[in-house]
Amino acid sequence: MRFAVLGTGEVGRTLAAALARRGHDVHIGSRSRDNTDAAAWAETNGVAQGSFADAAAFGEIVIVAVSGMHATAVLGAAGRPRLAGKVVIDVTNPLDFSRGFPPRVVIPEEGSLGAHLQAMFPEARLVKTLNTTNNAVMADPASVPGEHCLFLSGDDPEAKAVVTEVLSVLGWRAEQLIDLGGIATARGPEQMLVLWCDLTVALPGRRFNFGVAHD
Amino acid sequence: MRFAVLGTGEVGRTLAAALARRGHDVHIGSRSRDNTDAAAWAETNGVAQGSFADAAAFGEIVIVAVSGMHATAVLGAAGRPRLAGKVVIDVTNPLDFSRGFPPRVVIPEEGSLGAHLQAMFPEARLVKTLNTTNNAVMADPASVPGEHCLFLSGDDPEAKAVVTEVLSVLGWRAEQLIDLGGIATARGPEQMLVLWCDLTVALPGRRFNFGVAHD
Repeated sequence: MRFAVLGTGEVGRTLAAALARRGHDVHIGSRSRDNTDAAAWAETNGVAQGSFADAAAFGEIVIVAVSGMHATAVLGAAGRPRLAGKVVIDVTNPLDFSRGFPPRVVIPEEGSLGAHLQAMFPEARLVKTLNTTNNAVMADPASVPGEHCLFLSGDDPEAKAVVTEVLSVLGWRAEQLIDLGGIATARGPEQMLVLWCDLTVALPGRRFNFGVAHD
Repeated sequence: MRFAVLGTGEVGRTLAAALARRGHDVHIGSRSRDNTDAAAWAETNGVAQGSFADAAAFGEIVIVAVSGMHATAVLGAAGRPRLAGKVVIDVTNPLDFSRGFPPRVVIPEEGSLGAHLQAMFPEARLVKTLNTTNNAVMADPASVPGEHCLFLSGDDPEAKAVVTEVLSVLGWRAEQLIDLGGIATARGPEQMLVLWCDLTVALPGRRFNFGVAHD
């Protein structure tokens, strides 16, 4: 599969490197093509590098791995024609770090960033997932012992099936995935970030992830 | 231990019955002493019954098991002198069912109901817990297989130690409890109710609870 990873921060790099290591073609994108830091990283990791639009043009699947505060602008920069009909994996969290740590979870009233992005870009087949765990766990779920999970929210069942395959490439077993339903359900996993931030304090230095035990 | 359980709905009855069955003295409270339905239930279950104030006067430990929308008023009816110095276990969720299911999670902006209640009743030693699971699991955690947990938030470490004992009476092992820190951390578990509501739809008929897997 050909992947666009929008965002060259820690999350974007972790996902891009993991997919490239597993034999997929990956193009990372940032605001400008002239990002020497991202270019150097990309070369070392066997990944193509360019603007958001360059990456989106390349990818069959687009992963949004930027700050939630910038996600709408970044998809806009990627460009509607380059998102049309594509599976877009929304890993973002609407976190505002402007007042330091812990960040505030900023979301459209009663809504979610995922639902907002899908509404803004109806030509994309958006699936929200991976946002409830840190980047190291995203690409190495087996590093957390015991039972834990990811949540999937999206309006397009076929897109969710594609995302299930992508997650399997990253090491996630199908039984670790909980399909919550339509994109409106992205609100729940996004709101979990409040607890996630407190857990980084309560479990210092631990690698953790949420689970849902059930009968 | 002598318990006051404020609230005679499903959560209150489940907790009151479980504590009584395990040999503790329990007094349930509702808006009025003249609640024939609650009185009949209490008699059958070996529990005393009366007003919120009656129950609070009796209990060494007070459990708030009413709708979050009414919690402030109910603690007010219980009365400040009858809460002074006592451990108050806040099981409530700020859920507004006025527009049907799923309810909206209504919380003070950037705050939590738990922190609000502690601020309103500084004489109480409030601990938020149990609000992230349904009443059947609260009193029978072993009915959910696998690893799952509860969160504790509160400003008084001794009060949290008392609550750990109470939870042990209900069947919760110490290693299932995650101490998040002060009462300000009640926001995270309260915000999980958004996901909790969607999980009742995604896992229909299943008994479930959240977990946190970590290394």
